[in-house]
Amino acid sequence: MNLEHLRALTAIIDEGTFEAAAYELGVSPSAVSQRIKALESALGQVVVRRGTPCSPTAAGAVLLRMARQVQLLEAETRSLLGSDGTSMTVTPVAVNADSLATWLAPFLRDAATWTDTTLDLHVEDQDHSSHLLRQGAVIGAITSDPAAVGGCRVEHLGAMRYVPVATPALRDRFLAGGSPDWAAMPVVQFNAKDDLQHRFLRDRGADPLPPRHTVPSSEGFLAAVRAGLGWGMLPELQLGEALVDGSLVLLEPEGHLDVDLYWQAWTLDSVRLARITEAVRAAARQGLRSEAAAG
Amino acid sequence: MNLEHLRALTAIIDEGTFEAAAYELGVSPSAVSQRIKALESALGQVVVRRGTPCSPTAAGAVLLRMARQVQLLEAETRSLLGSDGTSMTVTPVAVNADSLATWLAPFLRDAATWTDTTLDLHVEDQDHSSHLLRQGAVIGAITSDPAAVGGCRVEHLGAMRYVPVATPALRDRFLAGGSPDWAAMPVVQFNAKDDLQHRFLRDRGADPLPPRHTVPSSEGFLAAVRAGLGWGMLPELQLGEALVDGSLVLLEPEGHLDVDLYWQAWTLDSVRLARITEAVRAAARQGLRSEAAAG
Repeated sequence: MNLEHLRALTAIIDEGTFEAAAYELGVSPSAVSQRIKALESALGQVVVRRGTPCSPTAAGAVLLRMARQVQLLEAETRSLLGSDGTSMTVTPVAVNADSLATWLAPFLRDAATWTDTTLDLHVEDQDHSSHLLRQGAVIGAITSDPAAVGGCRVEHLGAMRYVPVATPALRDRFLAGGSPDWAAMPVVQFNAKDDLQHRFLRDRGADPLPPRHTVPSSEGFLAAVRAGLGWGMLPELQLGEALVDGSLVLLEPEGHLDVDLYWQAWTLDSVRLARITEAVRAAARQGLRSEAAAG
Repeated sequence: MNLEHLRALTAIIDEGTFEAAAYELGVSPSAVSQRIKALESALGQVVVRRGTPCSPTAAGAVLLRMARQVQLLEAETRSLLGSDGTSMTVTPVAVNADSLATWLAPFLRDAATWTDTTLDLHVEDQDHSSHLLRQGAVIGAITSDPAAVGGCRVEHLGAMRYVPVATPALRDRFLAGGSPDWAAMPVVQFNAKDDLQHRFLRDRGADPLPPRHTVPSSEGFLAAVRAGLGWGMLPELQLGEALVDGSLVLLEPEGHLDVDLYWQAWTLDSVRLARITEAVRAAARQGLRSEAAAG
């Protein structure tokens, strides 16, 4: 297997198109196309699904994962040998939107001091980042899945606490005998995969389920709750002064859901990966709850 | 064509799976499956690509678009007839992340007062939301594409101004003769499709291109620039007090790029769609620059 060919594959997947990959590699699009064809004829399998953007086939995902591991090791060997002082290794990592919006800031500050690594963050639901690891799209992921993906090690980072909040006006509009009318008060969800609000409603026997708005962005979700569009489960880390200044209120004094987060990363003897792991760990120690979650 | 069948199609696409669609419609998964098979045998074409999540085929997208239009009109007819005072119409709308993070707050506050509509926001790059309109996934979109999608009307909303900023420490580290060393100072990009930083660098003749980090979330992008990971083009609306308190600095006093934004929506005589259009317009008048953009 040829490293140039593997590099063409990662460039196509990272950049999305053959043209962009060619630009990135500083070669012609037809050279990129020839490298992929060479890979495909050597394997006897299609590795890239041509589309906008291009994506790896099942066989391509296996190759991609190997390619990224080799590229990471190659870059580290080069810098150990002092033969490559200037180029940066791109390290793809999956994070969930709420983590990025809250406790990951110290991780970003650490990463800013690394002169040999750039970050390629993928924002993905914590429940769904395992497939990015499996596909070889990322080398590490913050996930809510404690089951290790093959070839990865996993460690518990801590828990993120979500609390049910709304504007005082919305709460007052849907008070029924002193407590919220869960079946009627509109709710905001992050996306169709987000079941935090659903779990909370189910525990309170809400039937039918209330009208729901969908706002798939952390800052947008917060803005929607602040605008009074609906109530939502917000990370306590994201509330800032909102409870103190009264712009938002807790809908239940003790109500909360804790989501355990894990760090999964390839079992690869890599200095850069170890450094990323350490930085994620340090940020988690500062920002996450360490006790076991109790929903 | 049967409305029940069309409703099964929209539910599958919105919820992602046959099971979730069944739950949403309050019927069994096999009933959902039968409705889709009925649609497919009537058309002689596959309409749903089975997967996780399910997606519409080309034929399915055409149906989906019709289905959403019919459902919107049906809901309005019902509420005019007073026969459906309680149910809410789900209105899918595409917005770009930066708009949602900044000038759309008044739109959300307006939407919070509508008792017959819930929002289903899709966060998509302003350059790439046209295909959501074409697919029938949304009924309106904030886009940077002034060319009307077939069956849609388009209007100019205003321009969003992006300015090049960094932490003072990062700027000082990469000063070369009084101005930034654009070829060396690391840059943050939103994702592979984001070319704002590239355009800015190209205009300044940066060669080679500097190391780049990828952070695909508005608040994450801001956090990364604040952490000193790299410089970036930030919406002036998102800077808050950062320039005043000195935590971020402008890299060029006059440097900026303006991105024109447009509202595209179906040409459909719908009260709800007209109300959404009016609310988007009002928020844009408050938050966007009205003069023609000059990069």
